[in-house]
Amino acid sequence: MSLNIVLFQPEIPQNTGNIGRTCVLTNSKLHLIKPLGFSLEEKHLRRAGMDYWKHLDISIYDSFDELKNKYKNSNFYFSTTHAKKYYTDVQFKDGDFIVFGKESAGLPDDIRESEPNNCIKVPMISTTTRSLNLSNSVAIVVYEALRQMNFPNMR
Amino acid sequence: MSLNIVLFQPEIPQNTGNIGRTCVLTNSKLHLIKPLGFSLEEKHLRRAGMDYWKHLDISIYDSFDELKNKYKNSNFYFSTTHAKKYYTDVQFKDGDFIVFGKESAGLPDDIRESEPNNCIKVPMISTTTRSLNLSNSVAIVVYEALRQMNFPNMR
Repeated sequence: MSLNIVLFQPEIPQNTGNIGRTCVLTNSKLHLIKPLGFSLEEKHLRRAGMDYWKHLDISIYDSFDELKNKYKNSNFYFSTTHAKKYYTDVQFKDGDFIVFGKESAGLPDDIRESEPNNCIKVPMISTTTRSLNLSNSVAIVVYEALRQMNFPNMR
Repeated sequence: MSLNIVLFQPEIPQNTGNIGRTCVLTNSKLHLIKPLGFSLEEKHLRRAGMDYWKHLDISIYDSFDELKNKYKNSNFYFSTTHAKKYYTDVQFKDGDFIVFGKESAGLPDDIRESEPNNCIKVPMISTTTRSLNLSNSVAIVVYEALRQMNFPNMR
C-alpha cells in the first residue's frame, strides 16, 4: 500500500526535505519534476542532516508529461487553491498520485485545467494573500488520504 | 470559533514561523511556553519575511502551569508519540487546546502523564527513529480538528 506524492518544480530545499521525511514515515513514494531549486547531491543532503533520505523511494523526471506517460492508468489529484472541491471531498485509494505546485506560483494552468474534477484544495481563512507552507499542505492531504485508508501498517 | 495551539519550548524558528502561518490561515490562537530557541523581536521577523505575523493572535508564558492556570476549564490534548490514541480518535471542539512538545525531546513526562486519556499521536511507519517535522504534525492535527468542525469560516 502506498501513495505517490508529486512535487512540480519545487524551489525550497527545506520543504522538499520535510516532504521526503513525511514520505518515509508514511511509506509514500516521492516524484520530483525538474527543474529543482536545489541539488540532490549526497554531500548536500548529508550536510543538511537528512539521515532519513536513504530510506526514501524517489524518482526525478524532466517533465510532467514524462511522469504522466509512465503512469497513464493511475488516478491523479491536483492540489490547487483554484479548486472547488475540498481535499476531504474525494475518496483516495492505494496508488493514487497527488500533485503539488511550486512554492511561488502553484501549478501551471494547463496541468490543473487538464482534470478539473480531480482538483482539490485545503480550505483556509482569507486574511492574507499567503497560503499554507508547501510541506504542511502535503502533510495535511497525505494524512487525510491515510485516515481514509485506516492508516495501513502505521502505528 | 477557534482552536488553541500550544508549543512547549519550541527550538527552531522556521517551525514556529510555519506554525504561526497555519494559525493565521485557520483562525487558531498560538501560545508559546518559554524558553524559546529564537527571538520574536520585530526586526528578526521582518528579516525572515514573515509578513503574516502581524495577523497572528499570540501569547507567551513563562511556564506551562501559567497557561494551564489561565485556562483551567478548557479541554487540553497532548500530542506525543507515547500516546495510545490516534489524533483521529478524539472529538475536537471549539476552544480546545492542543499541546506540542519541543523538536528535540517532545513533551516532558509530567505534562503528558497528567492527562493520559487526552494524549494523542499521529501514526507513522517505524522505519527510522525520526518523527514528523513539528510544523507538519501541527498542521495534520489542526486540520483534522477543523475537518471535524466542517471548516468554520474557511473556503
